[in-house]
Amino acid sequence: MTRDQLFAQILKKRSFLCVGLDTDIRKTPEPLRNSEDPQFAFNRRIVDATAEYAVCYKPNLAFYEENGAAGWLSFVRTCEYIRGNYPDIFIIADAKRGDIGNTAQMYARAFFDRNLVDAVTLSPYMGRDSVMPFLEYGDKWAVILALTSNASAGDFELQRMEGGKYLYEQVLETSMGWGTRENTMFVVGATQAAMLGGIRKTVPDHFLLVPGVGAQGGSLEEVARHGMNGRCGLLVNSSRGIIYADPSENFAETAAEKAREMQREMDELLTKYSG
Amino acid sequence: MTRDQLFAQILKKRSFLCVGLDTDIRKTPEPLRNSEDPQFAFNRRIVDATAEYAVCYKPNLAFYEENGAAGWLSFVRTCEYIRGNYPDIFIIADAKRGDIGNTAQMYARAFFDRNLVDAVTLSPYMGRDSVMPFLEYGDKWAVILALTSNASAGDFELQRMEGGKYLYEQVLETSMGWGTRENTMFVVGATQAAMLGGIRKTVPDHFLLVPGVGAQGGSLEEVARHGMNGRCGLLVNSSRGIIYADPSENFAETAAEKAREMQREMDELLTKYSG
Repeated sequence: MTRDQLFAQILKKRSFLCVGLDTDIRKTPEPLRNSEDPQFAFNRRIVDATAEYAVCYKPNLAFYEENGAAGWLSFVRTCEYIRGNYPDIFIIADAKRGDIGNTAQMYARAFFDRNLVDAVTLSPYMGRDSVMPFLEYGDKWAVILALTSNASAGDFELQRMEGGKYLYEQVLETSMGWGTRENTMFVVGATQAAMLGGIRKTVPDHFLLVPGVGAQGGSLEEVARHGMNGRCGLLVNSSRGIIYADPSENFAETAAEKAREMQREMDELLTKYSG
Repeated sequence: MTRDQLFAQILKKRSFLCVGLDTDIRKTPEPLRNSEDPQFAFNRRIVDATAEYAVCYKPNLAFYEENGAAGWLSFVRTCEYIRGNYPDIFIIADAKRGDIGNTAQMYARAFFDRNLVDAVTLSPYMGRDSVMPFLEYGDKWAVILALTSNASAGDFELQRMEGGKYLYEQVLETSMGWGTRENTMFVVGATQAAMLGGIRKTVPDHFLLVPGVGAQGGSLEEVARHGMNGRCGLLVNSSRGIIYADPSENFAETAAEKAREMQREMDELLTKYSG
């Protein structure tokens, strides 16, 4: 999907919501747990309930790999279901891969061949080699970790480099040269909203994928104020706050309510900050 | 597997060879390609041919994920085959994962539950949270990326931090405090042999996983001279140089020859540098 198509979806739905599919079988209601493919059964109901309010889904690979080959099948089925029923929705494989060139090429094939997803999250640690194979596909995206939402982002990302910049700033400045705003996004945690203003100066036009709103404590208003640009430029993710808002069999209805609440707030924020 | 058990294997086999199972279906000989599970069929023959000379196998997850759920099954079958037939051999899942705590826990379950592998390679970029869940298992290992063998290691790993250290040095110094020499290893590329002396001063007792010998140009002698300690402290990986040394149907016999050549050199290096 192109940047223009993504922005068109955002304007049409008045939403920049990404729903994180961190689907843990232990947390799915009892009846689903006994179905043939509980992860897919859960995801399918979540997707049907929230697709009206979301522009993006983000399956988190760890939750599928935990179930081995069956989990990969659930992941693939989920992507194919979204493609088949909601073809305008952007899909990010949250996989945080990062390896040398010939291996990175295999990961790119794993996620991009057969049009499974639109984007993959990548760790920048090993440098350019590990990202380039993902940028060689037309209309596909690399989503590079910059400043993450977890407490231990301080261990390295927020350490200072020679010259005074933070590591995450150097990552932004170096890696923005590998691709373009048409095929590269950056992960910036919502818990780091104070840093978003500075990040926007470095990458004014790139989309940012922002996790950490809700369960991790980030504020949507703060993220929009500091991070939005004239073409929105944000995909804000919520996982647990939507998909596990209700542990009962009504989980999908409650997920729809939570997604709609976020969409309404996003509608207002788009008017306020993205002229 | 414990550090003592691993060292005992090294002494018994007079080898610190890790065979990388970067198994690409396109490169497997024709007859195997038509079998029900070509990746497993190839790996099984490689393992049977080289187990006498190797103390470790390292399946590279990208090459399995490229084949989706079927690939995960090939990966699992490969690990189970090694466990069943060569129970003393160490297995590293080369996955380079790295995510926030609750996600890292899922990745740890994916690889460590049911005793699938002994160790997983991890990216340190997101800090402590992303490694700790792997250290909570008894006799399992986190193998943390420090200084990798690829050309673009220079992009970030070899950038200087405030105070003059390289990023990879800060990663070593910080992350060595998360676990112990009994559950933590570090990746240091063989192409960086000149740096190995300094790294040994920082982590004198930890095992280092060293890729990049052979196809990537690193020298085994150099690695041993700078990197070996009194309990060996090295696992040196070769992938393409062993498993693809011969594209014909005799690939397994040639792989055995290549592995035996490395084992013989390693035998001499153990005598020379590891008392």
